[in-house]
Amino acid sequence: MPQKPQVEPRLLKGFRDIPPEQSAQRAHILGILRRQFTLYGFAPLETPTLEYLDILKGKMGEEADHLLFHFTDQGGRDVGLRYDFTVSLARFMAMNQSIKLPFKRYQIGSVFRAEKPQKGRFREFVQCDTDIVGTTSPYADSEIITLLRDCFLALGIKEFSIVVNDRRLLAKIFSAIGIPKDMVVPVSRALDKLDKVGTDEVMGELTEKCGDKQKAERLLAVCQIRDDWLETLKQIGLLTGDCVEVSTLRRQMEIIYAQLEGDERVVFNPALTRGLDYYTGTVFEVAAPQLELGSLGGGGRYDELIGLFLGKPIPAVGVALGLDRIQLAMEELELFPENLARTAVLVTVFGEELERESLVMVSRIRQAGISADIYTQAGNIGKQLGYANDRGYRYAVIIGPEESAQQKVKIKDMASGDEQVLSSDEGTKLLSERL
Amino acid sequence: MPQKPQVEPRLLKGFRDIPPEQSAQRAHILGILRRQFTLYGFAPLETPTLEYLDILKGKMGEEADHLLFHFTDQGGRDVGLRYDFTVSLARFMAMNQSIKLPFKRYQIGSVFRAEKPQKGRFREFVQCDTDIVGTTSPYADSEIITLLRDCFLALGIKEFSIVVNDRRLLAKIFSAIGIPKDMVVPVSRALDKLDKVGTDEVMGELTEKCGDKQKAERLLAVCQIRDDWLETLKQIGLLTGDCVEVSTLRRQMEIIYAQLEGDERVVFNPALTRGLDYYTGTVFEVAAPQLELGSLGGGGRYDELIGLFLGKPIPAVGVALGLDRIQLAMEELELFPENLARTAVLVTVFGEELERESLVMVSRIRQAGISADIYTQAGNIGKQLGYANDRGYRYAVIIGPEESAQQKVKIKDMASGDEQVLSSDEGTKLLSERL
Repeated sequence: MPQKPQVEPRLLKGFRDIPPEQSAQRAHILGILRRQFTLYGFAPLETPTLEYLDILKGKMGEEADHLLFHFTDQGGRDVGLRYDFTVSLARFMAMNQSIKLPFKRYQIGSVFRAEKPQKGRFREFVQCDTDIVGTTSPYADSEIITLLRDCFLALGIKEFSIVVNDRRLLAKIFSAIGIPKDMVVPVSRALDKLDKVGTDEVMGELTEKCGDKQKAERLLAVCQIRDDWLETLKQIGLLTGDCVEVSTLRRQMEIIYAQLEGDERVVFNPALTRGLDYYTGTVFEVAAPQLELGSLGGGGRYDELIGLFLGKPIPAVGVALGLDRIQLAMEELELFPENLARTAVLVTVFGEELERESLVMVSRIRQAGISADIYTQAGNIGKQLGYANDRGYRYAVIIGPEESAQQKVKIKDMASGDEQVLSSDEGTKLLSERL
Repeated sequence: MPQKPQVEPRLLKGFRDIPPEQSAQRAHILGILRRQFTLYGFAPLETPTLEYLDILKGKMGEEADHLLFHFTDQGGRDVGLRYDFTVSLARFMAMNQSIKLPFKRYQIGSVFRAEKPQKGRFREFVQCDTDIVGTTSPYADSEIITLLRDCFLALGIKEFSIVVNDRRLLAKIFSAIGIPKDMVVPVSRALDKLDKVGTDEVMGELTEKCGDKQKAERLLAVCQIRDDWLETLKQIGLLTGDCVEVSTLRRQMEIIYAQLEGDERVVFNPALTRGLDYYTGTVFEVAAPQLELGSLGGGGRYDELIGLFLGKPIPAVGVALGLDRIQLAMEELELFPENLARTAVLVTVFGEELERESLVMVSRIRQAGISADIYTQAGNIGKQLGYANDRGYRYAVIIGPEESAQQKVKIKDMASGDEQVLSSDEGTKLLSERL
């Protein structure tokens, strides 16, 4: 054995191990999401973890140096760890121009951010993106929103809303009220807090940013309408006049409600901004305020990013789901199946002279689709049953001299203590029925 | 639209995009492997992509600087991208000493090597590791080998062999023949080529390394025995004398054959070395020479590595599977299901006035578990059917004024051209039955 090295075993700040129970929960979530993505006609795409730094910086400003893990590799190339999947998708589209549009792809994997980690925010985390590239069709936005709804339903999460807005409409409202262009970003940021910090605080901030209490009041009045979506849109129309932005969103909402068959989980909120540097049309996010976890996912239309490396527009609409928050939500709601990472059956080994029977039996049980383990040491059945109990196995199999002589196996229910002596086929069948 | 930036869209050397068809194949493989790992009682573990450099260097020598992608992060920490999962597993075990042993975990993910990329070898690639930590039991080695066999069978690969040896036995043979200790590594490397370059070349190299033609001949004679395993072991016993190494391997092989019920895919080969810096006991690898892809996976017992950061031995045995090679093998053997990444049904949109019916129908089809898409533009059914044909959809759904008036849908089989007009429930049922 080598001597203990002078290296302290430790994790990097903002990085983590995901132990078996947690990892099994995440695999469970990803399995459900992948299935929904596939049902919706999305195919998987994988891009590299490392990209050229200038590619990654494509859509970023100065903040790139703080946000990206980047370095010069052994070959003298400036490289970085991916920050999201979108810029890589833009690169992929530029390098694969023969790909048929619309292109529906999903990508699941780790992304990296060098920012200071905060509670629940890590420097490496898994993102699940689905995007439809190459169409401005409002059906595409509706597809993404319907997918989002169905993903959460498939996960078992029932109480949530999908808040929808259109960036263009918000811009129109701003201009109708007379908010100066250089104030659009700070005003939007203030508005975005409406559901978090309350009206008074937002009102104060808006007045300051708009430089005019009346404007702030008018804006807040519009953004606080919580009538049904059509009524809200009508009132916005009164403010902005008859404009393409209102009719575009009206048509979009009609399509969404048609596809969702009127699901009331989808709501229109004219205050939703989701940042301003990226989206060019529809924006949406999943809210489940009772969980106090923030948004579980969101997205929108971004028609000016995917063509980044081509210099021509390629429209796109997509959504990103955060695995960490979904996992927290499902834990809180107790939606994970029991025994997700637990093996069902322990096959004990009575003694070396009888090990063959146990080695064969464990294979038979697995072949029947049941997860099983074999104890690693022959003898002392009491100790082996204690181990089974300790680890939460649901059944133990014992093949002692008596069972072996009769070509039988003993199946012990660990919870009730009930034992049955059966042929190995019958025993396997019993386990199949019970598990 | 922003102007085209001066950035050329490109990939880093040794990195790649994995497009949808390929990615779907890989997801198919990983789904099968995960299921087998779970059946065998392995639970998933995830460790970070980035680790402290001194952790990663734990088991490496000078070669670390060439093999690892490493850099100093924004916080001044020396960090690196993981090279494999084993050193992270050792770190995890040191940081989680209360974990119950034996600990059976699998990990699937990208690992990174800064070496010069070669044909079929990338700087980022997916590895699938399963390990049993904390037991010296020969049942554990047998579990891993049986798992390996069952993984390949579950993938549909039938023609392969699992070559088994024990590093300790090889050491004993070397010492019995009188090969000096400082020649063990080069002699082993020469032996490892036996099945690749042929006897003559290996003989020449062995003579040079052993410094003695007679020793080289004796070694080659032993390593070329291709009798049944028991007979081979007997002959080795004659050379080495009655020794613990021979009886250890005999017992190990008996256990493996018991568990595998004599599967002849498992063969003993006294020349198998699999490198020498790492393994301390059993070694094994999957060979499918007819595929000319090299080993599809392999592993062994390594009792001195997992305790690295604790300074006390923690035994372990495990196997690593290479996703790239398995994918190539399955492509060559045509084992992938057809239409793996293809969506089954296209729902067309006759016109905006009938879009509601199509939007609802696509949801219904998906709810029945069938992958479906909706065309993104209303009108021109001919164009939409051409699109369906082009992309290999198997069915198209048309809801025109006639169908709508009768509350029906038309289901068109794209291959035969057959059409049926049915209620939407009957249509969905038909698709379920056919797909």
